[in-house]
Amino acid sequence: MISNKWAKLIKSLHLKKHRKAEQLFFVEGEKAVLELLQSDWPVVALFATDSFLNQHTALCQRAALLQNCSAAELEKVGSFSSNDAALAVVKIPQWHFTPPAPTDWVLVLDSINDPGNLGTIIRIADWYGIRHILCSEDTADAFNPKVIAAAKGSFLRVQLHYQPLLPLLQAANRPVYGAYLGGESVHQLGLPQSGGYIVLGNEANGISDAVGRHVSRKITIPAFGQAESLNVGIACAIICDNLRRLGGA
Amino acid sequence: MISNKWAKLIKSLHLKKHRKAEQLFFVEGEKAVLELLQSDWPVVALFATDSFLNQHTALCQRAALLQNCSAAELEKVGSFSSNDAALAVVKIPQWHFTPPAPTDWVLVLDSINDPGNLGTIIRIADWYGIRHILCSEDTADAFNPKVIAAAKGSFLRVQLHYQPLLPLLQAANRPVYGAYLGGESVHQLGLPQSGGYIVLGNEANGISDAVGRHVSRKITIPAFGQAESLNVGIACAIICDNLRRLGGA
Repeated sequence: MISNKWAKLIKSLHLKKHRKAEQLFFVEGEKAVLELLQSDWPVVALFATDSFLNQHTALCQRAALLQNCSAAELEKVGSFSSNDAALAVVKIPQWHFTPPAPTDWVLVLDSINDPGNLGTIIRIADWYGIRHILCSEDTADAFNPKVIAAAKGSFLRVQLHYQPLLPLLQAANRPVYGAYLGGESVHQLGLPQSGGYIVLGNEANGISDAVGRHVSRKITIPAFGQAESLNVGIACAIICDNLRRLGGA
Repeated sequence: MISNKWAKLIKSLHLKKHRKAEQLFFVEGEKAVLELLQSDWPVVALFATDSFLNQHTALCQRAALLQNCSAAELEKVGSFSSNDAALAVVKIPQWHFTPPAPTDWVLVLDSINDPGNLGTIIRIADWYGIRHILCSEDTADAFNPKVIAAAKGSFLRVQLHYQPLLPLLQAANRPVYGAYLGGESVHQLGLPQSGGYIVLGNEANGISDAVGRHVSRKITIPAFGQAESLNVGIACAIICDNLRRLGGA
């Protein structure tokens, strides 16, 4: 059973202000919780169905607190509406951004609002071997349950850094690519193998003027039909794919 | 004001069985409704705020029935939870699939369940100039409000055909590419300029064995990091981008 005290705590963690105050967030769903338990992240508490606990007895011992409960209890405190088997309460990690190695790519998110988009971008970064994402301070919170759900296990491998973008980009002695609707075609760029920054802008307004002044090269995904735009997650994936096809592994 | 009769009808159109019985669906949101009014699709009824009607007086005359109402009324009958300005009730079009021209690409969806994914795929098809999507009969319904919302205006330009896939693929005298996790790299394929079919499988289970037997070439998106998989919409976008970068406009 999930005690009232824990139920209240988990429910509070749906909101950023409580996650910030407690320095905790939660991970739901069998697959994501299993990936978490296989990582070295500190797990404060694990609530799971008997079936989950029996199948993964050894792994579950990783949690500082372990408690069996029903799927219905998990659904009451978490954000999933069905098929829930496990929920873990986890300490928010402390990440510090250090300038990347010369061949690394870093994503820069200028005010991405939608948690689903942010989660998708984290998953794409992980697929393409990008370890660091710089986020403007108004970008959706990395530990929002919707972000964690959309990122699948990739939130474990990609670090998000929330800080003012301008000083960072000013100091960047590396190419800064920005995704625009009217830039150079990513199909013809011949992007360098050397890495750099890739800036993606807000869903409705694109890259802000202030950030845009630090973009050294505007890039765009060529359209062959009539759609007005692509979702920012889709654009991120296509740009990363174009970078990696040129740059190699 | 939206009359009780219309409110009841629109609410019923959230469900596929009622859309099928009435042969109607609805389109919400200022931008999508404007694109609809600029098309030649028959608009049965338009409900909109005074501000929308005043700004687009001439266009609104396209609707057979025109009625002003409040944003709150729109939110009550539609699927948007805020900022709604217009909702149009539209006749479901009758589309017939004819084998594509030799240079055309056709998407084939084998049991795509999530309406958001389907809408995203429609938008991507439109961006890359793909006009036809073949859907297994258990794929999410094209006129589900969540599909229409995710597709943006692209539902107006891409035709979806729900029919058994096996007879169609059996009769296809064109290459059939299937997206798998362990196929040939799309970066090294040298895909032909000649067009063909691209099969995308179910979110959890991939392409079914029966459909897979008609795939002439298994393709995959190379991974450079550790994510286990990509969302099907993301995979669709990357494959289309790789096709078009080779095939030209």
